Amino acid sequence: MKPKLKIIPLGGAGEIGKNMTLVEYDGAILVIDAGLMFPESDMLGVDIVIPDITYLLERREQVRGIVITHGHEDHIGALPHILPRINAPIYATPLTRGLIEVKLKTHKLLKDATLHTISTRDTLCLEPFTVETFHVCHSVPDGIGLAITTPLGTIVHSSDFKFDPSPVDGQLTDFAKLAELGGRGVLALTSDSTNADSPGHTPSETSINDNFSRVFALAEGRVIVATFASNISRIQQIIDIAARFNRKVTIIGRSMQDNVKMAAQLGYLRIPDGALIRVEQMHQYALNEIVIVCTGGQGEPTSALVRMANHDHKQVSLTPGDTVILSATPIPGNEEMINRTLNNLFRAGAFVYYSDLMHVHVSGHASQEEQKLLINLVRPKYFIPLHGEYRHLVLHARLAQSIGIPQENIFVIENGAVVEFDEHRNARVAREKVTASDVLVDGIGIGDVGTTVLRERHHLSEDGFLVAVLTLDAHTGEVVFGPEIITHGFVYLEKSEEIIAGAREVMLGALKKGGSGAALSVKLKDELSRYLYQQTHRRPMVIPVVTEV
Amino acid sequence: MKPKLKIIPLGGAGEIGKNMTLVEYDGAILVIDAGLMFPESDMLGVDIVIPDITYLLERREQVRGIVITHGHEDHIGALPHILPRINAPIYATPLTRGLIEVKLKTHKLLKDATLHTISTRDTLCLEPFTVETFHVCHSVPDGIGLAITTPLGTIVHSSDFKFDPSPVDGQLTDFAKLAELGGRGVLALTSDSTNADSPGHTPSETSINDNFSRVFALAEGRVIVATFASNISRIQQIIDIAARFNRKVTIIGRSMQDNVKMAAQLGYLRIPDGALIRVEQMHQYALNEIVIVCTGGQGEPTSALVRMANHDHKQVSLTPGDTVILSATPIPGNEEMINRTLNNLFRAGAFVYYSDLMHVHVSGHASQEEQKLLINLVRPKYFIPLHGEYRHLVLHARLAQSIGIPQENIFVIENGAVVEFDEHRNARVAREKVTASDVLVDGIGIGDVGTTVLRERHHLSEDGFLVAVLTLDAHTGEVVFGPEIITHGFVYLEKSEEIIAGAREVMLGALKKGGSGAALSVKLKDELSRYLYQQTHRRPMVIPVVTEV
Repeated sequence: MKPKLKIIPLGGAGEIGKNMTLVEYDGAILVIDAGLMFPESDMLGVDIVIPDITYLLERREQVRGIVITHGHEDHIGALPHILPRINAPIYATPLTRGLIEVKLKTHKLLKDATLHTISTRDTLCLEPFTVETFHVCHSVPDGIGLAITTPLGTIVHSSDFKFDPSPVDGQLTDFAKLAELGGRGVLALTSDSTNADSPGHTPSETSINDNFSRVFALAEGRVIVATFASNISRIQQIIDIAARFNRKVTIIGRSMQDNVKMAAQLGYLRIPDGALIRVEQMHQYALNEIVIVCTGGQGEPTSALVRMANHDHKQVSLTPGDTVILSATPIPGNEEMINRTLNNLFRAGAFVYYSDLMHVHVSGHASQEEQKLLINLVRPKYFIPLHGEYRHLVLHARLAQSIGIPQENIFVIENGAVVEFDEHRNARVAREKVTASDVLVDGIGIGDVGTTVLRERHHLSEDGFLVAVLTLDAHTGEVVFGPEIITHGFVYLEKSEEIIAGAREVMLGALKKGGSGAALSVKLKDELSRYLYQQTHRRPMVIPVVTEV
Repeated sequence: MKPKLKIIPLGGAGEIGKNMTLVEYDGAILVIDAGLMFPESDMLGVDIVIPDITYLLERREQVRGIVITHGHEDHIGALPHILPRINAPIYATPLTRGLIEVKLKTHKLLKDATLHTISTRDTLCLEPFTVETFHVCHSVPDGIGLAITTPLGTIVHSSDFKFDPSPVDGQLTDFAKLAELGGRGVLALTSDSTNADSPGHTPSETSINDNFSRVFALAEGRVIVATFASNISRIQQIIDIAARFNRKVTIIGRSMQDNVKMAAQLGYLRIPDGALIRVEQMHQYALNEIVIVCTGGQGEPTSALVRMANHDHKQVSLTPGDTVILSATPIPGNEEMINRTLNNLFRAGAFVYYSDLMHVHVSGHASQEEQKLLINLVRPKYFIPLHGEYRHLVLHARLAQSIGIPQENIFVIENGAVVEFDEHRNARVAREKVTASDVLVDGIGIGDVGTTVLRERHHLSEDGFLVAVLTLDAHTGEVVFGPEIITHGFVYLEKSEEIIAGAREVMLGALKKGGSGAALSVKLKDELSRYLYQQTHRRPMVIPVVTEV
């Protein structure tokens, strides 16, 4: 049998986050990205979610390398959890590598990692793959797309991109390379679907300069801008505008400071002499000479902005007259936290600008017209929408169809699906899928929290639990201790003495009807549950502890 | 001391939902609205949230009446919980009364309630208050604002409103009355701040007709529209468009059917003969002759739309070729549920239209230019923004200031604050506040779930619990039963035998160090917690149960 070429998304297909795509040919595997996702609201107690790499662990020796397309969490965040298990070489552009190094350093994993620097127009030979890189605009500089040439043809992987006509760093998406690839012939295009429900074009990063300037011009006190720690372009914009308004910039928060230092050293941030000050130097300046850049655009409870708003940040407390710009798009599920933060900022007396009120943030992802442009430049035989929830994939597929890709050459697939190309370059979705579930990280545990534990946590979060303790004499069956009730998360105990007393009665009543061992426990559980529901219309987890001594 | 006039928000000031405002003069109290709010995501296990009526319960005899401004949940939803405790007469316009009756009937409270019908241009004498009503446009017909004349002056309460230039029912907001009130002189205006962060004007309800028609024109199979059960205007629009496209309309879901029946009987819905069909009749028609209207615009798990998408609705299952319109704005906190529903609709093969993609819903609340127009018409001495989160109140206040209301005449207040007018008609915020906390309804319990229970539920939802059972001989101190570990929501037991075995060792070790009674329990708890954190970096609720027999 002739070897087949496979494209396998392990993450990012049918969800926004934890991107990881495999390209496999004749036993050799190329990994694209290794991202994390923040847990959905029903993943109770979970810290982060990473891709399932079972398939890779079984083929550890076949992994030729991990190519990282840019330095966002949803593309690099799983590396600290994956590298200890698959120590493959990592390929990244300078800024992306810098962001990876900052991350690996905090996890004490840097010295064991093998990192290779590549440029935004490069060619890597990772037999049997030839990987050509091309620059793409996104909300972090130095992002790349990949053209992966295999014996069966070339796969173009856009990764996150947009066609920004005036990017902050002046680096356009590499039209020339895309057109060249299109001319050469492309077997398949895998492309960013995130904004497939946004008509038109995504505005340029620099389109927010005017509004930022307006806000700076009006601000009478400090200006505080909250954004992502990795949003180097936004930080550059703020530094530039601050200079025009004769303000000094201070960066608050360890991760952002590390990123700024690294980006400046690598030349990705142009910082005029004396433009940056340390937070301790702020008191030397008037309020209207200061700009603070910090994290907190998602209302994260531990972020600098939230602490400032709640007056529990060590170094900065918000005061009336401060101006705050929230320069971020809410990640779905964070809206309530963001709203709460906004309200607290207003309570502290700040003037606050956020996206409902003013255009102070732009998406880093292509809208429909840009998605079409990419397809038209690359002219692939097959099209696979990636990086998006299911609806985005479908909308992206319909878009591709509307500009001439035949429906049968478009594959809307979710994590774990395998698109297979045979020796005649004909593609289909394989019947067998690869393991690609959500791997939940909670504390030290990776993957041990699954549906059972989550179901229990959900039950407990709704109605709490009630433990009913009873110790019986093994010979006589008489009660030697109890009934004792321990309950949390169910009712407010100080006002529920009657219910608890009633529960004890129910237990004694059940006991009188006879039975012992497991049968008694089941009976106690049933009768208690029924009684508690009657009394409260709640269903706490009921756990009888009957011991016979 | 001369009697004072007071305005007291018990709900809706600093939040969106559970609206309730009191106007008090010389011991007499007028209640405006009695709404509910859906719980925020950290109110675990809570069903709904209602206003705290402690203040009213202490003054039960002084309540002259409850005037309801319109029939939305956030204005009527608390009535079933409040009426059993304060059975004051309720005043409402016909459609609003109809919606209240539907609600009270399901709670078996209708026969004990005293309901009075008023019109949208009416005058009520509720000594010492004269209440004049005026029509306001909103996303439900028959809404009113109030002008409450007291011996100290007139208070105008806009309630939820917008200046819709082309409402579905043709009824404009009552400019004439507002101008007349402005001419007469208004002491204070309390007004809807919900959209104070939206520049410009809110589009008219009828502005979505074009897009609905486009969708109907393109639809090859059934058209399914999801909206709120009380959104009578939207339902009218759908009925009208369906008639033009020769489609029959079927209403799915009890609450919506009840509302439609009632609204039609009262003449608030114009339904052409034969336009409506029962769900059982659907099979008599081709797919492209059918429109289904149902609830589920917020992705509510039990709604008809979600069940249809998940193929567990008794009567309707989505099939490829169906077209779905989600005509609703996400309530903050519901975004994830809505996204999940959208993805499932796409998975079922439907063509789905939602607000990111197309303009298929409009807000029912005034935007900034309309808010200004209202203030300019009414020209109040004092201005109190209500109905909004804190940031909306501040933005609304700044808007009022920008058009000439002096800053010192604007009061940004939250629930429980008292604005007091003295005999010279001078106002200030009183130092003392009124009890106005969130009252959480969970099952039968009203108000018994508070911070303690919620904190426990939160703890349990993150890391679960672990009960450690040990029975000792009271004389010798020897172990007669255990140590036994019961744990839920903490780790996946089948893969955590070592941790549990270790926990037993820790207990026996702690026991050897001596101690008994409460001291032993504390020691067990500490040592177990430390051990479990070391092993997992999680902090389950640890409960030792030590009995001595």
